[in-house]
Amino acid sequence: MTSRIGFVGLGHMGSPIAENLIRSGHSLRIFNRTSEKVAPFVEMGAEQAATPADAASPGGIVFSMIANDRVMEIVTLEEHGILERLGKGGVHVSMSTLSPALARKLEKAHRERGAEYVAAPVFGRPEAAAARKLWICVAGAAGARARVRPLMEELGQGVFEVGDEPAEANVVKLANNFLIAAAMEAMAEAFTLGEKNGVPREKLAEIVGKTLFACPIYQGYGKAIAEERFEPAGFGLMLGLKDVKLALDTAEESQVPMPLAQLVHGRLLSAMARGRGKLDWAALALGAKEDAGLGEQ
Amino acid sequence: MTSRIGFVGLGHMGSPIAENLIRSGHSLRIFNRTSEKVAPFVEMGAEQAATPADAASPGGIVFSMIANDRVMEIVTLEEHGILERLGKGGVHVSMSTLSPALARKLEKAHRERGAEYVAAPVFGRPEAAAARKLWICVAGAAGARARVRPLMEELGQGVFEVGDEPAEANVVKLANNFLIAAAMEAMAEAFTLGEKNGVPREKLAEIVGKTLFACPIYQGYGKAIAEERFEPAGFGLMLGLKDVKLALDTAEESQVPMPLAQLVHGRLLSAMARGRGKLDWAALALGAKEDAGLGEQ
Amino acid sequence: MTSRIGFVGLGHMGSPIAENLIRSGHSLRIFNRTSEKVAPFVEMGAEQAATPADAASPGGIVFSMIANDRVMEIVTLEEHGILERLGKGGVHVSMSTLSPALARKLEKAHRERGAEYVAAPVFGRPEAAAARKLWICVAGAAGARARVRPLMEELGQGVFEVGDEPAEANVVKLANNFLIAAAMEAMAEAFTLGEKNGVPREKLAEIVGKTLFACPIYQGYGKAIAEERFEPAGFGLMLGLKDVKLALDTAEESQVPMPLAQLVHGRLLSAMARGRGKLDWAALALGAKEDAGLGEQ
Amino acid sequence: MTSRIGFVGLGHMGSPIAENLIRSGHSLRIFNRTSEKVAPFVEMGAEQAATPADAASPGGIVFSMIANDRVMEIVTLEEHGILERLGKGGVHVSMSTLSPALARKLEKAHRERGAEYVAAPVFGRPEAAAARKLWICVAGAAGARARVRPLMEELGQGVFEVGDEPAEANVVKLANNFLIAAAMEAMAEAFTLGEKNGVPREKLAEIVGKTLFACPIYQGYGKAIAEERFEPAGFGLMLGLKDVKLALDTAEESQVPMPLAQLVHGRLLSAMARGRGKLDWAALALGAKEDAGLGEQ
Repeated sequence: MTSRIGFVGLGHMGSPIAENLIRSGHSLRIFNRTSEKVAPFVEMGAEQAATPADAASPGGIVFSMIANDRVMEIVTLEEHGILERLGKGGVHVSMSTLSPALARKLEKAHRERGAEYVAAPVFGRPEAAAARKLWICVAGAAGARARVRPLMEELGQGVFEVGDEPAEANVVKLANNFLIAAAMEAMAEAFTLGEKNGVPREKLAEIVGKTLFACPIYQGYGKAIAEERFEPAGFGLMLGLKDVKLALDTAEESQVPMPLAQLVHGRLLSAMARGRGKLDWAALALGAKEDAGLGEQ
Repeated sequence: MTSRIGFVGLGHMGSPIAENLIRSGHSLRIFNRTSEKVAPFVEMGAEQAATPADAASPGGIVFSMIANDRVMEIVTLEEHGILERLGKGGVHVSMSTLSPALARKLEKAHRERGAEYVAAPVFGRPEAAAARKLWICVAGAAGARARVRPLMEELGQGVFEVGDEPAEANVVKLANNFLIAAAMEAMAEAFTLGEKNGVPREKLAEIVGKTLFACPIYQGYGKAIAEERFEPAGFGLMLGLKDVKLALDTAEESQVPMPLAQLVHGRLLSAMARGRGKLDWAALALGAKEDAGLGEQ
Repeated sequence: MTSRIGFVGLGHMGSPIAENLIRSGHSLRIFNRTSEKVAPFVEMGAEQAATPADAASPGGIVFSMIANDRVMEIVTLEEHGILERLGKGGVHVSMSTLSPALARKLEKAHRERGAEYVAAPVFGRPEAAAARKLWICVAGAAGARARVRPLMEELGQGVFEVGDEPAEANVVKLANNFLIAAAMEAMAEAFTLGEKNGVPREKLAEIVGKTLFACPIYQGYGKAIAEERFEPAGFGLMLGLKDVKLALDTAEESQVPMPLAQLVHGRLLSAMARGRGKLDWAALALGAKEDAGLGEQ
Repeated sequence: MTSRIGFVGLGHMGSPIAENLIRSGHSLRIFNRTSEKVAPFVEMGAEQAATPADAASPGGIVFSMIANDRVMEIVTLEEHGILERLGKGGVHVSMSTLSPALARKLEKAHRERGAEYVAAPVFGRPEAAAARKLWICVAGAAGARARVRPLMEELGQGVFEVGDEPAEANVVKLANNFLIAAAMEAMAEAFTLGEKNGVPREKLAEIVGKTLFACPIYQGYGKAIAEERFEPAGFGLMLGLKDVKLALDTAEESQVPMPLAQLVHGRLLSAMARGRGKLDWAALALGAKEDAGLGEQ
């Protein structure tokens, strides 16, 4: 079944997702702040929207994939924003990594206008998005979730229904990114311990990734951290810091001390201060190494 | 090819390993401090040794699986210890989790007598040992490693050759256990964040274990931490604390600051202080939860 | 020399300061959100202002002592706020503990209207304010500082000129409060170590306060932490958490990793989660004690 | 009242203490491993002892000021050690910074021979020792304490009676050194926050030392950390690390998690790894600064 879908946000993640929706036969009406980016999608058959509101259709479905909370508020709540036009019966599927606090605010704003807000943040990098290999966590009202579920399944390899409150999916996403950062710090310390005790970093990374931690995060980031290969950035350190900060902000609001999250936050902040904001966020691993007196990059 | 092998130490891990060696057709000569434990192995065909030295044969192969550094020194270096009899050409395969510092000392002591010390610590619990599913990290002189490699392959699902210095295998083992503890702390914080924000612990554990962290540690310990099921102990908290302490001692000697290792050490120490030494070491996860004001067990 | 002075904010700290200004002979025009609180000051000779703007006089001096950033923005920048009336040549002396970020914003807003914003946060509790024993850190344009300096000297036992940018005084204040929290955590750990090794907490507190740490913070908080006396709250834990959070926010903006600030933040957040928000912030010390398995209060 | 006193250990601290005892009229019999160091004291009237045992006299008083646990065991317990000759009724006054665990062992060894072991560790650097400005914490049996108290009073500006178990005085000493390290880390973070926000380090150090933290540690170390002047070393970083490690070992044995002690331990260990072992231990402050991306020394 194909349908007309609004789409807002053609960034690194939004672009492959939008393309997949088009290739699946859906008619997309797309808004992007930098309008030239829409051109190739128009060639694939999409329509160009003049504003976020213009991308939405009353009672329809609109997707958004937005960089951060502030921009999300603009494209959704402010003048010419999605909510201006979406209206009663519409469903807004937000795939962005946002704060649970904003999700709560957006859910309320949608509800007040008779629309539904569904949070559907994703796990995976742009390549995974292109290959329809994303993992998607969906939270929101049951009816709205059911309506958009088939679309989610077209976009990823697995869909997890988290709960009825959109913010819950954002919490899962932030928790997940925190877990990744924690695993990287753990490997950074372990590999440095190995290095100073005669075990080559690559050897340790190999053993770890083939035995009890035989999973993508330890294998992929383990290799990068062992080889200290942080360019090109698959996920930029500055974005990583933003996400860990969102996790800590959420922890603060809900009174959850998270010392390990603080530790990785400190590592990322230090990496920023040392001018590594453009590297992959795995470069947080340099902290453990340099603390041990091993050469700066 | 079968052979005569000495074996010292019938604890939780040593017992299934010894049994597997017997079932593979090897003739074992076994010493255990509590001698009654040897009886069932004698029924399977093994011989009982009166002392650790008596278990070894000159120029032969002897295995040991010992609880800690102190006992290892006794059974190897002191009177009636393995080294008294092993002698020139003998190979001592030490599967215990010991400090790299002791491994260095033992390597030297063996070398001085013409024997070889091979460290072969294992990943896996008793069930894995029984099922020949251990992962084994081997380090020591190349010739000695080659001689015992076939035996290692009978005991596990994978053998990793780490290097020529026995201590290196111990470093890998300690690094690995540290990584497990770090992953548990990360999950403990993440699940608590979820719990206080409407995401059930089990739901978060499920998503984590099925997506980017689809590996035994996150799946097994994730479930235990989500359900707060810490009995019976698969790996006791006191032993976990001992291993993390060994990692920190090694870090101290080699001047490697490991703040995440310190964090999990603190969690384990606090759990001991709160009377949880007999629980599974995954009970370190209670720390994050209680810090967030959620009910004590 | 006496003068006409506006005054906004009659909280725990503002009240004794306003009273001292009156007793020194100045004519105060006071605004407080809860207007009844102004009555006793009117009896002392002050005038009541209907709005923050009404407290200020064009080209005059106005003091403010406000609970937090949000309220400060309201009373200064919004409708009927101080800036509406202060105007060219006026000086706004802000004694509150605010974020450096807000100080920068307020400085700009004042400058655009020809007024001066002077930050003058204070060290000391209400009793110290009443006794004119405050320490005051002043930052802002040199001319404005010179104009208000005599007033500062009437209010405290020492005035420190920090610099030309108001935000700098706020940084000093936040750094100072962080140092206090750090000292409390240090004592909490030290006293717990003593307690579990036979040294009574009070004994250790006494020695510390009489030897190398013979200063008010270690003496006063040392006694409270040794005796575990956290009521009545001299400075509430919730306020302490707010200040440490401001320090961490400032650290984030300026890319300064502060692991010790994170540690005390975690302690304070945990205390909040455990329902201790109304206690004195020295109750953060319970964390170290409980981690060591010593009884909950 | 003067008396014959044995004295073992003429290091940086032992030398001025021995000199003061001589100047007060006591007859000293001195042993030092490097025997040439004894010569100037012989010129002042002391006698040279050939061994630690030879410095002691049966039933007499002997002082020791020794670098670390290992050497203390040698000079006290091993062949030709103090205990060989001290015997019944003798009192051994140990002024060294040692582990409480060793103090317990030494107390037992002395008691078994009818002698008394009094721990009397000191606060203060060599200059303070020379000026009789030490603070001394005394613990041990009441009678023995009473006997040596007059001698203590000659050596310092204040004597604190801690308790009946010698180890308790060592705990106080370790707790105190930990508090110093914690204060240094706190200042390091605070000054870095100031520096990146326009407040000169020296300005902040000055305000801190003149207001709520007007005590020697904040004033002295505050200045050193502000100016980054870490040579010559008043107290070497390697010794500082040793003492913090003793505190953490004691914490481990008594199950006291000390995250702040771990933090400063990590800073000191990192400083060692970066080749700063010969600097004053205040150089741990460089960690916070470098983490913030400010230039390496």
